[in-house]
Amino acid sequence: MGTLRIPDFVPSPTQDSETLMNSFRGLGTNEKSVISVLGHRNASQRKKIRETYQQLYNKSLIDDINSELSGDFRKAVVLWTYEPSERDARLANEALKSKKKIITQLQVIVEIACASSPDHLVAVRQTYRGLFNCSLEEDIATNVPMPVQKVLIGLVRSYRYDKELVDPSIANEESTILRETIRTKQLDSDNFLLILSTRNVHQLRATFECYKQNYGFSIDQDMKSCGKGLLESILKVVIWCIDSPEKHFAEVVRASIVGIGTDENSLTRAIVTRAEVDMMKVRGEYFIANKTNLDSAVIGDTSGDYMKFLMTLLGAKVY
Amino acid sequence: MGTLRIPDFVPSPTQDSETLMNSFRGLGTNEKSVISVLGHRNASQRKKIRETYQQLYNKSLIDDINSELSGDFRKAVVLWTYEPSERDARLANEALKSKKKIITQLQVIVEIACASSPDHLVAVRQTYRGLFNCSLEEDIATNVPMPVQKVLIGLVRSYRYDKELVDPSIANEESTILRETIRTKQLDSDNFLLILSTRNVHQLRATFECYKQNYGFSIDQDMKSCGKGLLESILKVVIWCIDSPEKHFAEVVRASIVGIGTDENSLTRAIVTRAEVDMMKVRGEYFIANKTNLDSAVIGDTSGDYMKFLMTLLGAKVY
Repeated sequence: MGTLRIPDFVPSPTQDSETLMNSFRGLGTNEKSVISVLGHRNASQRKKIRETYQQLYNKSLIDDINSELSGDFRKAVVLWTYEPSERDARLANEALKSKKKIITQLQVIVEIACASSPDHLVAVRQTYRGLFNCSLEEDIATNVPMPVQKVLIGLVRSYRYDKELVDPSIANEESTILRETIRTKQLDSDNFLLILSTRNVHQLRATFECYKQNYGFSIDQDMKSCGKGLLESILKVVIWCIDSPEKHFAEVVRASIVGIGTDENSLTRAIVTRAEVDMMKVRGEYFIANKTNLDSAVIGDTSGDYMKFLMTLLGAKVY
Repeated sequence: MGTLRIPDFVPSPTQDSETLMNSFRGLGTNEKSVISVLGHRNASQRKKIRETYQQLYNKSLIDDINSELSGDFRKAVVLWTYEPSERDARLANEALKSKKKIITQLQVIVEIACASSPDHLVAVRQTYRGLFNCSLEEDIATNVPMPVQKVLIGLVRSYRYDKELVDPSIANEESTILRETIRTKQLDSDNFLLILSTRNVHQLRATFECYKQNYGFSIDQDMKSCGKGLLESILKVVIWCIDSPEKHFAEVVRASIVGIGTDENSLTRAIVTRAEVDMMKVRGEYFIANKTNLDSAVIGDTSGDYMKFLMTLLGAKVY
């Protein structure tokens, strides 16, 4: 369940477009208006607003947001306003083109591949090709070193079965293969990757459960014995994104605000991508893991319109 | 260019459905009618006929064809009448479930992955999931032994860039990698598979051309040095399906009729799947390779309504 709040009475896309255009007109921008409209509309409503805005003013809403807003607030509103498949295609491209090939960047690709629906993943690949003149896999191959490259390509190419179908004997059999791979520290082996990128998420959750019962440790704990490199970190994210996306995103939020300074990109991504998916559960997992409140943490580490926008997506009544 | 002939005046889907229903009614079936209608309609017209037939009679056209026709004729008409993505999903499933894991069976999967559009491949995977309760990759993993399994899974997961974009330096660089792989006889290596399953077909054709220029032999000729196993045969089909699908399908037709007896399944598949794609070119390639006419070969090896239906798809005026 998401945290996004949609009013009982939703204005028409034309009314919303007019409100947005008025908030951009003249000197300065009425940020409150922007938050009040976009922060309370779901993906299909935002899509209609984008289309209507384009028809009414012959201008792109995203372009106008880009020129009227600034800083982290702008970035958050733009990401939120994109079609989700375009948002994720752009996030993936940004991660691949960043100089630092570190876990906080590359985990974006794992999230798209393992914590979204199979059809969404295909839509992202489709949009990626249209935007960047090559396939997502080609850009991974060019920008990410082996063996992480192999894992990411395997994952973005998955098109998992989408119904809840679990075969206990497969769970048992494949938990043995996973265990053997970890024991022999061959995390980039074909078998290991094939299981993680082919099976449906319900089957994989059963396999992970089986692993725990058979070997006494959860698979992500066990994997710590393989080291702390980028490959191991990526695979931990893979397992979390499959087993419990909400736990993963709670961890993304925590990591983005812990210590000195805030990683606004990660914080924005976690809230924008999950606000209409499972943010209620993310909040719960955050509390379990940190014994503090996710909302208070966001308020403590952000400010101004950026904070107000994030809090709106988290369901708070900001205005 | 295909060989399918569509009349200048096409009856409405309702008229076509009525003609089909009348041809099924009473004792016996009017095969001529069935050929005259379905053998002269393209994929979107056949789709409308399927939908209209269902609405008018509350029965599935495919079910009725299955119960009214028989033998190879039935199989050909049924395959032709399916939505192309469903046809290919069923062909792939049949190939995977057949006891013999031989090249004439498994090459079907290569054709779908390498000689169709990327969007068609995604549609086949989508339909496959819906029909068979698991992903296409899972069924390949269960039914095909390594290392062919790895190659097929890599290929069906591709989603190539679909525009003509060629980088000559990539062609040069990757032809070296392909050559090195063949020289060291490591045809199942990750690098080799990555190139074949990630690059767009235009880029790959340039890479193959570069290979020939740099090393004096075409890549498929060179690959003969690696042996004659299933892996080598599959990879030859991969290269042909990418480089020149029409050459591959001309070869499928030839192999299906050469020697004693006919492989009707392969013959039907080649003609049904390419009649509205590139059958003109297939015919040309057939002539170049065999110095005989594809149409005469089909007439010589088939008979009755089955022959008449295939010849109709090949553009002949049967009735």
